[in-house]
Amino acid sequence: MIGNHLFIGIDIGGTNTKGGLVSRDGTIVAEKTIPTGAFKPAEYTLNQVVSLIHELTRMAEGSGLVTGIGIGAAGQVDFESGIYIEGPNVPNWKNIRVALEIEKIVNKPVILDNDAHLAALGEYTYGAGRGVSNMLMVTIGTGVGGGLILDGRLYRGKKYTAGEFGHTTIRYDGPVCACGRKGCVEAFIGKQAILKRVQEKLVLDRTSLLHRIPADEMEPRHVGEAAAQGDEIARNILRETGEFLGIGLANVANLLNIEKAVIGGGVSYAGEWIFQSARERLAKEALKVPRETIQVVHAALGNKAGLTGAAHLAMDFFDHLD
Amino acid sequence: MIGNHLFIGIDIGGTNTKGGLVSRDGTIVAEKTIPTGAFKPAEYTLNQVVSLIHELTRMAEGSGLVTGIGIGAAGQVDFESGIYIEGPNVPNWKNIRVALEIEKIVNKPVILDNDAHLAALGEYTYGAGRGVSNMLMVTIGTGVGGGLILDGRLYRGKKYTAGEFGHTTIRYDGPVCACGRKGCVEAFIGKQAILKRVQEKLVLDRTSLLHRIPADEMEPRHVGEAAAQGDEIARNILRETGEFLGIGLANVANLLNIEKAVIGGGVSYAGEWIFQSARERLAKEALKVPRETIQVVHAALGNKAGLTGAAHLAMDFFDHLD
Repeated sequence: MIGNHLFIGIDIGGTNTKGGLVSRDGTIVAEKTIPTGAFKPAEYTLNQVVSLIHELTRMAEGSGLVTGIGIGAAGQVDFESGIYIEGPNVPNWKNIRVALEIEKIVNKPVILDNDAHLAALGEYTYGAGRGVSNMLMVTIGTGVGGGLILDGRLYRGKKYTAGEFGHTTIRYDGPVCACGRKGCVEAFIGKQAILKRVQEKLVLDRTSLLHRIPADEMEPRHVGEAAAQGDEIARNILRETGEFLGIGLANVANLLNIEKAVIGGGVSYAGEWIFQSARERLAKEALKVPRETIQVVHAALGNKAGLTGAAHLAMDFFDHLD
Repeated sequence: MIGNHLFIGIDIGGTNTKGGLVSRDGTIVAEKTIPTGAFKPAEYTLNQVVSLIHELTRMAEGSGLVTGIGIGAAGQVDFESGIYIEGPNVPNWKNIRVALEIEKIVNKPVILDNDAHLAALGEYTYGAGRGVSNMLMVTIGTGVGGGLILDGRLYRGKKYTAGEFGHTTIRYDGPVCACGRKGCVEAFIGKQAILKRVQEKLVLDRTSLLHRIPADEMEPRHVGEAAAQGDEIARNILRETGEFLGIGLANVANLLNIEKAVIGGGVSYAGEWIFQSARERLAKEALKVPRETIQVVHAALGNKAGLTGAAHLAMDFFDHLD
């Protein structure tokens, strides 16, 4: 199998950095996770990524040749130049020439992009978005991220920041979002918004199963578990969350006439209640054709979407070089 | 000049149908307008379009050769097959094979698209959107239409209905829109919304210049004229309209990171007050990079954007055939 082309995908997170050795068909041949060291000096994180690449390259020996490397990170990336401008997960990276610096050391071509874009690319190529040409990927966690595939290609926008579905408002005088704006989708469906609604409802209730979970340990998945056991408070919270998601998706459906909304991230594991009511509300809110065109589905690649998408980006760019 | 390639662009409106003979550089060499006859049988309107094409072809004689014909109409168009499915302006056209029927008669290639898409293509190619790769065209009249150019190409979406900016909500429990949904941009900035606010404010006022215009003759341009003469009520109404527009545009800026929002249509003639406050509100609402990327500008082609875009579409598709 020597000569088989392999690609490295790296997903830099706030706590951990995941790396994978990926074959042309999207199979993750080998994997490794290391700490990001996000609050250490900029060089530290850069070195961590380099050593992850070295290790994955060694793991490739015997089964194939590493042809290129794709890296995804949350935040503002200048895609064209491979510069990481700034972002929340690696606060000490300010205008760092990530692609160039790493290329010099590992002596292989490196490409850098925003992590939400790459998650969309991963789901589109190997996951829940296979076979469509137009989709929105939404990742619901503490933040609500998004990435767009339009006419069969990753759509980045002029300065590469497109996809911020979480920061589209659905009520201009609604709750304040982490971004400062009011009524963003994130301020309605992000993890903090859900947990806040949980505590508000528990004050008025004595019987919910959610009383068993201390407030500071509560996670969206607990709400999902309680809903599955028939807890009405939990079900209502998830239904509401789904309705807000559906309203936001109707905007994207009307504006972009997409075929799929692929929903992933921690909050999506809270279960079917969110999806059900998102689909119902979307069907009420979107125009006829966009409503008939769009499907709301679960992401398929879990937390591997980012690294698989990163590897695929490298494939797209470097497969012809070797 | 015989042999020069010319293209016919047709814009089918609810009252009139405009046709133009357009050269490769976007110059309208000749023009003619005829009644659409929208409420007559389907064949009538089809024949009107055919006779307009014949007449424009005759007008081309001596100066060039008509190479192809582009037609735009409001409503749902199946772009791939050239079928007009349904729409408000020509209610008797239901699943009419417009492109095919006309091709058979005029013996030249015909292409059909949605009018808002073609207005976007016109402004992008020859008007206010020249030189950018990503833009939204917004036409504010009774309805609020939209078209998108993304990565340098007209973006239609899966079933060709993309661009419905007017039907993105900015307040999910806001005023009811003509589409049935609540809080759509159209329900805040469309002509009817503006005129309703005028009458509401006049009830509480005795001095506004707008009292001189009978309610049933009031048009957005009267509000623009009163604002220009210093009328505070008129100015406030236009400022509010601009703020709502700015909120809607911030959603598109965050989602698509576009370079320009090109604003046209009757309401846009109400003047600079709308634009000023739209820009200010957009700057407050959009994320940093999208905010720095986007410009809000006046459309440049007036009511010729649609026919010029239609001619350009024909150029794109048929220029190689002859």
